[in-house]
Amino acid sequence: MATKYVFAFGNGKAEGKADMKELLGGKGANLAEMSGLGLPVPPGFTITTEVCTYFYDHDQTYPAELKEQVIAALKHVEKIIGAKFGDPHNPLLVSVRSGARASMPGMMDTILNLGLNDAVVEGLAVKTNNARFAADSYRRFVQMYGDVVMGASSEGFEHLIDEMKRERNVRLDTELTAEDLKELAARFKRRIADDLGTSFPDSPEEQLWGAIGAVFRSWQTPRAIEYRRLHAIPAAWGTAVNVQAMVFGNMGEHSATGVGFTRDPSTGEHRFFGEYLINAQGEDVVAGIRTPQPINIAAKTDAAQLSLEEAMPESYRQLDGITQKLEAHYRDMQDIEFTIQEGKLWMLQTRNGKRTAAAAVKIAVDLVNEKMIDQKTAIKRVSASHLDQLLHPTIDPQARREVIAKGLPASPGAAVGKAVFSADDAWEWHNRGEKIVLIRLETSPDDIKGMAVAEGILTARGGMTSHAAVVARGMGKPCVAGCHDLAVNATKKECAAGSITVREGDWITLDGATGEVMAGALPTVTPELTGDFGTFMGWVDGVRRLGVRANADTPHDAEVARRFGAEGIGLCRTEHMFFEGDRIDAVREMILASDVEGRKQALKKILPMQRKDFVGIFRAMDGFPVTIRLLDPPLHEFLPHTDKDIAELSQVTGVSADQLRRKRDELHEFNPMLGHRGCRLGITFPEIYAMQVQAIMEAACELTAQGVKVIPEIEIPLVGHVHELKMLRTICDKVASEVIKHTGTDVEYLLGTMIELPRACVVADEIAHAADFMSFGTNDLTQTTFGFSRDDAGSFLGEYVERHILPVDPFVSIDRGGVGKLMKMACDLARKTKPDIVIGICGEHGGDPSSVMFCHELGLDYVSCSPYRVPIARLAAAQAVLK
Amino acid sequence: MATKYVFAFGNGKAEGKADMKELLGGKGANLAEMSGLGLPVPPGFTITTEVCTYFYDHDQTYPAELKEQVIAALKHVEKIIGAKFGDPHNPLLVSVRSGARASMPGMMDTILNLGLNDAVVEGLAVKTNNARFAADSYRRFVQMYGDVVMGASSEGFEHLIDEMKRERNVRLDTELTAEDLKELAARFKRRIADDLGTSFPDSPEEQLWGAIGAVFRSWQTPRAIEYRRLHAIPAAWGTAVNVQAMVFGNMGEHSATGVGFTRDPSTGEHRFFGEYLINAQGEDVVAGIRTPQPINIAAKTDAAQLSLEEAMPESYRQLDGITQKLEAHYRDMQDIEFTIQEGKLWMLQTRNGKRTAAAAVKIAVDLVNEKMIDQKTAIKRVSASHLDQLLHPTIDPQARREVIAKGLPASPGAAVGKAVFSADDAWEWHNRGEKIVLIRLETSPDDIKGMAVAEGILTARGGMTSHAAVVARGMGKPCVAGCHDLAVNATKKECAAGSITVREGDWITLDGATGEVMAGALPTVTPELTGDFGTFMGWVDGVRRLGVRANADTPHDAEVARRFGAEGIGLCRTEHMFFEGDRIDAVREMILASDVEGRKQALKKILPMQRKDFVGIFRAMDGFPVTIRLLDPPLHEFLPHTDKDIAELSQVTGVSADQLRRKRDELHEFNPMLGHRGCRLGITFPEIYAMQVQAIMEAACELTAQGVKVIPEIEIPLVGHVHELKMLRTICDKVASEVIKHTGTDVEYLLGTMIELPRACVVADEIAHAADFMSFGTNDLTQTTFGFSRDDAGSFLGEYVERHILPVDPFVSIDRGGVGKLMKMACDLARKTKPDIVIGICGEHGGDPSSVMFCHELGLDYVSCSPYRVPIARLAAAQAVLK
Repeated sequence: MATKYVFAFGNGKAEGKADMKELLGGKGANLAEMSGLGLPVPPGFTITTEVCTYFYDHDQTYPAELKEQVIAALKHVEKIIGAKFGDPHNPLLVSVRSGARASMPGMMDTILNLGLNDAVVEGLAVKTNNARFAADSYRRFVQMYGDVVMGASSEGFEHLIDEMKRERNVRLDTELTAEDLKELAARFKRRIADDLGTSFPDSPEEQLWGAIGAVFRSWQTPRAIEYRRLHAIPAAWGTAVNVQAMVFGNMGEHSATGVGFTRDPSTGEHRFFGEYLINAQGEDVVAGIRTPQPINIAAKTDAAQLSLEEAMPESYRQLDGITQKLEAHYRDMQDIEFTIQEGKLWMLQTRNGKRTAAAAVKIAVDLVNEKMIDQKTAIKRVSASHLDQLLHPTIDPQARREVIAKGLPASPGAAVGKAVFSADDAWEWHNRGEKIVLIRLETSPDDIKGMAVAEGILTARGGMTSHAAVVARGMGKPCVAGCHDLAVNATKKECAAGSITVREGDWITLDGATGEVMAGALPTVTPELTGDFGTFMGWVDGVRRLGVRANADTPHDAEVARRFGAEGIGLCRTEHMFFEGDRIDAVREMILASDVEGRKQALKKILPMQRKDFVGIFRAMDGFPVTIRLLDPPLHEFLPHTDKDIAELSQVTGVSADQLRRKRDELHEFNPMLGHRGCRLGITFPEIYAMQVQAIMEAACELTAQGVKVIPEIEIPLVGHVHELKMLRTICDKVASEVIKHTGTDVEYLLGTMIELPRACVVADEIAHAADFMSFGTNDLTQTTFGFSRDDAGSFLGEYVERHILPVDPFVSIDRGGVGKLMKMACDLARKTKPDIVIGICGEHGGDPSSVMFCHELGLDYVSCSPYRVPIARLAAAQAVLK
Repeated sequence: MATKYVFAFGNGKAEGKADMKELLGGKGANLAEMSGLGLPVPPGFTITTEVCTYFYDHDQTYPAELKEQVIAALKHVEKIIGAKFGDPHNPLLVSVRSGARASMPGMMDTILNLGLNDAVVEGLAVKTNNARFAADSYRRFVQMYGDVVMGASSEGFEHLIDEMKRERNVRLDTELTAEDLKELAARFKRRIADDLGTSFPDSPEEQLWGAIGAVFRSWQTPRAIEYRRLHAIPAAWGTAVNVQAMVFGNMGEHSATGVGFTRDPSTGEHRFFGEYLINAQGEDVVAGIRTPQPINIAAKTDAAQLSLEEAMPESYRQLDGITQKLEAHYRDMQDIEFTIQEGKLWMLQTRNGKRTAAAAVKIAVDLVNEKMIDQKTAIKRVSASHLDQLLHPTIDPQARREVIAKGLPASPGAAVGKAVFSADDAWEWHNRGEKIVLIRLETSPDDIKGMAVAEGILTARGGMTSHAAVVARGMGKPCVAGCHDLAVNATKKECAAGSITVREGDWITLDGATGEVMAGALPTVTPELTGDFGTFMGWVDGVRRLGVRANADTPHDAEVARRFGAEGIGLCRTEHMFFEGDRIDAVREMILASDVEGRKQALKKILPMQRKDFVGIFRAMDGFPVTIRLLDPPLHEFLPHTDKDIAELSQVTGVSADQLRRKRDELHEFNPMLGHRGCRLGITFPEIYAMQVQAIMEAACELTAQGVKVIPEIEIPLVGHVHELKMLRTICDKVASEVIKHTGTDVEYLLGTMIELPRACVVADEIAHAADFMSFGTNDLTQTTFGFSRDDAGSFLGEYVERHILPVDPFVSIDRGGVGKLMKMACDLARKTKPDIVIGICGEHGGDPSSVMFCHELGLDYVSCSPYRVPIARLAAAQAVLK
């Protein structure tokens, strides 16, 4: 039997279903599902994603069977509609759209009004009794097809339109007559032939195949590739192509087109929410060129607005009913598109709606309360990576807001950054380490790269469903859209709101929840984690197996971590305890000392300060374990490097500048990442680790005596050979037992190591003999496994990801194929020695959902991440169980 | 049954045998063997190495059974000798010596004349009828025991001797009377009691246990530890203790002591070779204080010398017979020690003699020719690491030698270096990257560290068997010993030979084969590799399985490599092809170019030069494979770094200094080892690799057309992910096929990769899909596996090895436990994909015998090393088969 490449739908029936997204794409599967539900869907058919795969595997050709199947499906559509593709007397027009497994809004090509030529346009005029509509459709089609399929310059078309308007001495497009528009279509065709040396295809069938090919080809445009990279969508998935009978929202005042959500995608509030435009085609709404009207009376913000509920009450009621039916059917909030053609409602699309994290949580909790879904389904409904938005600070309510402009609250959260006016500038400033806010008249897919690095996005045009708004919500970034008060001048790199001008580099603050724009950098506060969020996280914690700790170096961080639900500290770095305040002087004194005694003297000054640090951290983590990593960075990081700083230090210490320079040069390293650091320091200067252990244990004993439950875990960094660990363990155990003896308070402590070198992974069985616990330091492990310096890899890593040499930046998500293999080996070997050894992970991967899933698969005991990412890790850990 | 801790020997019998070295140590096993052969060996017994292990495992105490066993063995000795330990009327005196499994000359303690006290010394005087001898023995014993066992200051004793000589108004020790010497012994004892608060033990039994303990303790002195570190002797082996009846070479003119070799240890010549001293104790010969006489007439270099053959012809004949018997018994060249006590010959030791590499080869070949051993045994007899000496240059015979002094040719080879006068200075200069020659009056075990880093050693005192000579031969370093013409002033850091003064830092040249010393740095030439060496290496090649290639970057290196027997080039680095001559200008032009076209223009200039390089290398390797590694180092290595150099480049190129500085800063890396290098360069600048492949293939095609057999292997460095290799393979294959098409000459080439990152090891199965061959780059693999930067690890790696954290420097010998595990994994995975994939190793481990053995075990196809180490690798590969 020949492979089925084409699936038809329409007239209350369909060959496909919602669960066939892999084959039909999201749009195709849902069109089939809607049609199968008996909803009014324009008939059509879907060409499967398998054809896309075939297309790229076979030098951009199609399987032999395809042609026949398309022709048959088209005949089926003709039969339902009662019109004929290419028939001048009773023409069927179609749209050709992409539809991948995952939604990629605006990323790929669409062709509308396909099937028109000089003969058919006349028939359409007769059939619709609307010559101007027919001619305008023709003009639009030639322009769109010329641009998208044939690759003609779109400016060229605009130029011809302007020329025509000058000739006709009119100002607006709408003033052009049917004849003018037909003439324009003819001029477009001539321009195409002249520019490209190919004539515009008059045969509707040829047009159809051209459009199908263009959609498949658009799967590999740079912007589609960039989008997939950002959203981790595999190139191998491919796109389907949907060919569907055209319906027209632009056939006059009884026609309209719109989009909607069954619940508010920003807040999750349960109300039908949407926008529409009378006498418009679908792309007009999302393109953000005309500002759409609210769909119902409840959503009106201004009495002058005209809602669909008011303008076309019958259609609105039918639409409202359909959306409720759809939500009940899919058991999730739906994002729908519809067109009303001369009073008749057509459903063009339904899909699970994108939403902010806040909305996702609220919708999930509400749906459970409404008994539509169970808790486990609810947990799966919230994207762990998007949760980030909820956890980021909002503007301090105490702060005085000087609002300079107000737009639509398109994506919630506070964004504070320096103003930039192009995606390229955004990228450049970001790479310099600046926080930036991207300000655009409106955004297009070309801006994605800039949006990805911005703290927030501000646009002067577009609605709540404009490109900027949709993409920003998807990225979990604050966005204020449609801020009409703002005059943006991208060329001069500035924008003006009334008398205030914001120039490139000026601080600006956005409130994505209110739409307010403020000059300057406003203070922010951490979010509330109660209400629906608290309920939801309770369910999450009931499901997950993996423990979640936080990386926290100070009592303050430790408190934040607890608030976010951290069950201990997985990594307390002690570096800052050597840098802060006056301590750096004692540290430098230690480094400059010529012998052990000198170093010990200097360390004695640091001891009480570090003890105090540990007291604060242990107190905040009462009852929870605290993993403390002994000093890790190379000593030269504590010395001044410039001649000026050296001169200053010389003044303070009385050590000659020459001597300081000699010490600096002596400690200089060619590859500090691979240098004299971590446990290597502990071995050559055991007195440093001894002081740290003394401070830790004195703090632990002091608090234990006060009734605080302290669980210290002393961690030796950068161990590669078990002898390193054994030697340092001896020193640490000795100091600890002295402190316990001296204070008379017994404190149980663990002593373990980071696993952050490939060698440590392959000898983890040996290391486990000397370690009570192990914690993967996947930052360094990734650096050494790949031989990538994180500080230097910027010069090629971006290209590696873009060109699919690596599927994802290995510093963002654990490289399962390489680093992950070493981790697995380490776990297996360590457990062979000590089946119950505690194994965790600290470092940034601990807050990355995909990496958390991997850690769950490895059977780790816990992940540890930055306090703000703790809820993300908790959710990812629960989702890993449900996967 | 109680463990047997003591093994007796003497009177033609023995409880031990030669093959019990692990238990009895080398000396003990051979004393037992000699005694068992019926040779005249002073009776004694050996306390096993197990006691040493017990001693260190049990807080320096002995097993309970030991005492009784020692007493029984001592009684046995008394019976054979017919004297009694501690009996004033018929006293037995004993020596107490160390003896480990491996020889550690001079490293551990020895006590002679043990068993004397104020009463016994009188009995000895009566028994020997030599009061002065008895008193002198007593004085020596108290001094030795006080120093070695009790830890009294040896200068203190010298001071008392000087004082006594002043009191007696004499100049020489020999002028002191028996009474003086007894008085001296008494003063020594008082000084010991005063200084240490412990009185000298008068009980012979107490003396014996004190000496046994001292020998065991000497196993862990810093100099013994250092020696073991240098010779990779495990601390766990422990030493045995040999207690043996004393015989005296210092009982007058009919007594003597000496050492000898059954063949010349320098040249391997088959002649009895040795030195002796009349009226002396054994330590006098090796200490180099008196210059010994040749053992036979044939060895005399001066008519004034008196050989043993002349002085004591009967003893000489007996000795000559015994040595021949011993060599036939052991089937190897023997190193013997003997003493003649009043005309009676006693054998004190025999062992396989240390020898130079040249001697080792000659002796091995001669023994095969003499049908004493077979070829396989011969192969095992030559130490691969010592072969080095044979392969290093000797002084160019054309060079004009201005000999400033002449000493003994103690260890062959030419040494050219800057003069230093202490071990510490040697170490310091060496660490600065200087080649040095160590000049000492005489060397002691404290100098080992300095000798290890010297190009050669020059001493003013000592014979062919002095400390300097023995150690230098062991290390395979050139040595001129006993150069009496030289006045060495270590304090002033200079030495004088006649009117010529050599100061620290002055160049000096030694010829270890002639004993000549020359001022200045003389040119050297490569050695002849024919004769015995050629015969021997022929046997080696017949046995080994592993291929041996060389690392060679130039036609000249390639020729040298072929001469040393390399079967191809395993690593041809191409870096220098970008640096040399004018090329650097074009390379800089390439780096400074702003686009691909600019880079291509610059590369075009380099292409013909590189093609010429490859033509030369391919021609030299006619018929053998040549692995060419494409460009590896980061581009910033090709730019000037100092402001001065930048200014110069600015002048030449017309590019502003500012722009050059910006480029330099832009390319600066924090960890260049982990930066933008290797295949990462090839991916971002594919035009560079394309140019290199074009040059390689054009050269290959040109020569193939001329009838040369060219086997190019193109190697992509630093691959971590198979996608890197696949992408670059596509580019390289395209260029290669274009060249083949263009030239019309078909050349088969392989394309493969270095395996030098941990990730590459764990995904070798994937990489093997895209690689025709793989070559381990164990330098980088060691760096990344350990997280050690080779450039920076100096600050701790020495300590790591000294403190046994690592058994050996992993940059010298492959770390089997970690790096080796990854290599094994890579081999297994790669062969799973491609069972016949060619796997080799390049880099310095390829010339390290222990690493070569490991590579044999892994089943690699070849090792590749520097041309001069090719014979070493060949030998190690053969020995791996025979192991």
